[in-house]
Amino acid sequence: MAISIRQRPGAIYSYERTKFKSIMKNIFYLLSLFFLFVAEHSVAQTQTDTSKRYIKVPAGYLMVLRQGDDVFKLIEGMAMVEKIPSATLSGMGFVNARFGFFNFKTKEYEPREFSEVEMGSMTGSIAWQNGKPSLHIHGLVSGKDFKAFGGHLLGATVSTGSLEVLVTLHDKQLQRIKEEPLGANVLQLGQ
Amino acid sequence: MAISIRQRPGAIYSYERTKFKSIMKNIFYLLSLFFLFVAEHSVAQTQTDTSKRYIKVPAGYLMVLRQGDDVFKLIEGMAMVEKIPSATLSGMGFVNARFGFFNFKTKEYEPREFSEVEMGSMTGSIAWQNGKPSLHIHGLVSGKDFKAFGGHLLGATVSTGSLEVLVTLHDKQLQRIKEEPLGANVLQLGQ
Amino acid sequence: MAISIRQRPGAIYSYERTKFKSIMKNIFYLLSLFFLFVAEHSVAQTQTDTSKRYIKVPAGYLMVLRQGDDVFKLIEGMAMVEKIPSATLSGMGFVNARFGFFNFKTKEYEPREFSEVEMGSMTGSIAWQNGKPSLHIHGLVSGKDFKAFGGHLLGATVSTGSLEVLVTLHDKQLQRIKEEPLGANVLQLGQ
Repeated sequence: MAISIRQRPGAIYSYERTKFKSIMKNIFYLLSLFFLFVAEHSVAQTQTDTSKRYIKVPAGYLMVLRQGDDVFKLIEGMAMVEKIPSATLSGMGFVNARFGFFNFKTKEYEPREFSEVEMGSMTGSIAWQNGKPSLHIHGLVSGKDFKAFGGHLLGATVSTGSLEVLVTLHDKQLQRIKEEPLGANVLQLGQ
Repeated sequence: MAISIRQRPGAIYSYERTKFKSIMKNIFYLLSLFFLFVAEHSVAQTQTDTSKRYIKVPAGYLMVLRQGDDVFKLIEGMAMVEKIPSATLSGMGFVNARFGFFNFKTKEYEPREFSEVEMGSMTGSIAWQNGKPSLHIHGLVSGKDFKAFGGHLLGATVSTGSLEVLVTLHDKQLQRIKEEPLGANVLQLGQ
Repeated sequence: MAISIRQRPGAIYSYERTKFKSIMKNIFYLLSLFFLFVAEHSVAQTQTDTSKRYIKVPAGYLMVLRQGDDVFKLIEGMAMVEKIPSATLSGMGFVNARFGFFNFKTKEYEPREFSEVEMGSMTGSIAWQNGKPSLHIHGLVSGKDFKAFGGHLLGATVSTGSLEVLVTLHDKQLQRIKEEPLGANVLQLGQ
């Protein structure tokens, strides 16, 4: 059968590339966690890139992320290492940010990048989804002309400066579930 | 006397309409409180519109408001049900928001509506005024083009998504008083 | 020698003016602290300009600054009087704000003033630098047209209204250090 002979080679290639990327992503993830663990528990701290990224405070954790840090990866890493049941985030700093506005027709985020901008405010939460940390973070950024842009954060890295984040810890393990027909991930308060 | 015969019928109609609206508002208020109470104390929780809107956390309360929820009414309802002495709010989500900029000449707010926008940040406080909860909330919103708008919130409803709010509880009953000639409601720290 | 006779009089004048300004600044500082102390500990509180500016709450301190208050001076004053080891700030109100965007070439802030604007969100931290309180605060403001502007706050005074600030207290004395070649002050989490 003609169709089975051709076997959609692009799809196979794409599948393997995706698998490779997924493996690389997991390796990177485990390495990040390893360094987070080392940084948190090492006796001799130095103020280089290996400096610790968070400390325990009465409200939860105080994070200071540094130039080049992947904001989402490091918060997710901390959530796993510290077994955070759930938490609310609040922060500010200097970042490269990627925002996305959810298009309810296509059910996809329309993204836009903002480079080397002040993060005037960052507000969000840590919960769990399918056994993994689930972040929901909104932010407001501005550049040289001070005009503010904001929305749902898809990702962010720290630019020339730092990002300070207060993580207010909750005592209940909370899940985030994609609710239909809403098409949005919603933090669940029930059991 | 001509003027007394005409008796400003518009004013009377307006008075009765206002009274009717006031009664309806109170009924709606009590119903909201009833459902809040039921939602909070019912044994069998379901993830529908009757799902609970907040849980107790170490810092105070974590609220997750849902599509169609009136943000101010539900926060005021929680303040009454839980007898919150005073609190600070922080939140983010997807809303329809009404902002007002205070005109110090007319002593009125000049309003503007923003529909289906990301609430990038919401900051405010709960106190009491004339025996009722008094909210003072500021917010920043943005739409598809990510341009941010902000100011004093006159009202908000949750749009297609949710609104997460951390309520940091204080232990002192605080009042808000309208101070003259300032013409602004100010949170009072003294006795 | 001609040059030594002229002795750069402008420079001397400038030095003395700087010294004079520095002394005046310190006097103002001590007076501010004195009034803060009086306000905090006086038995008879009145709701005038001498009313207390903050109270203790479980999370730390709740501040309500009033018309004309210098936001940075009063937070720094509280940090000294209460010996705050470190803290995270969150606030909102009505202000005159001065923002600065850091120019990494000139290593200076390019400032811009915004008068009589709503502070939609204010996020920052209190730490220590060279024995003095060190504030790092970002904010978002908007005026009559609700368009938002934001960034790194260089200074702010309260305008016709108030500024409410929640100070979430940490238990560790933290330092802020200017890191090179970054050229930015970074909050230090290590020992």
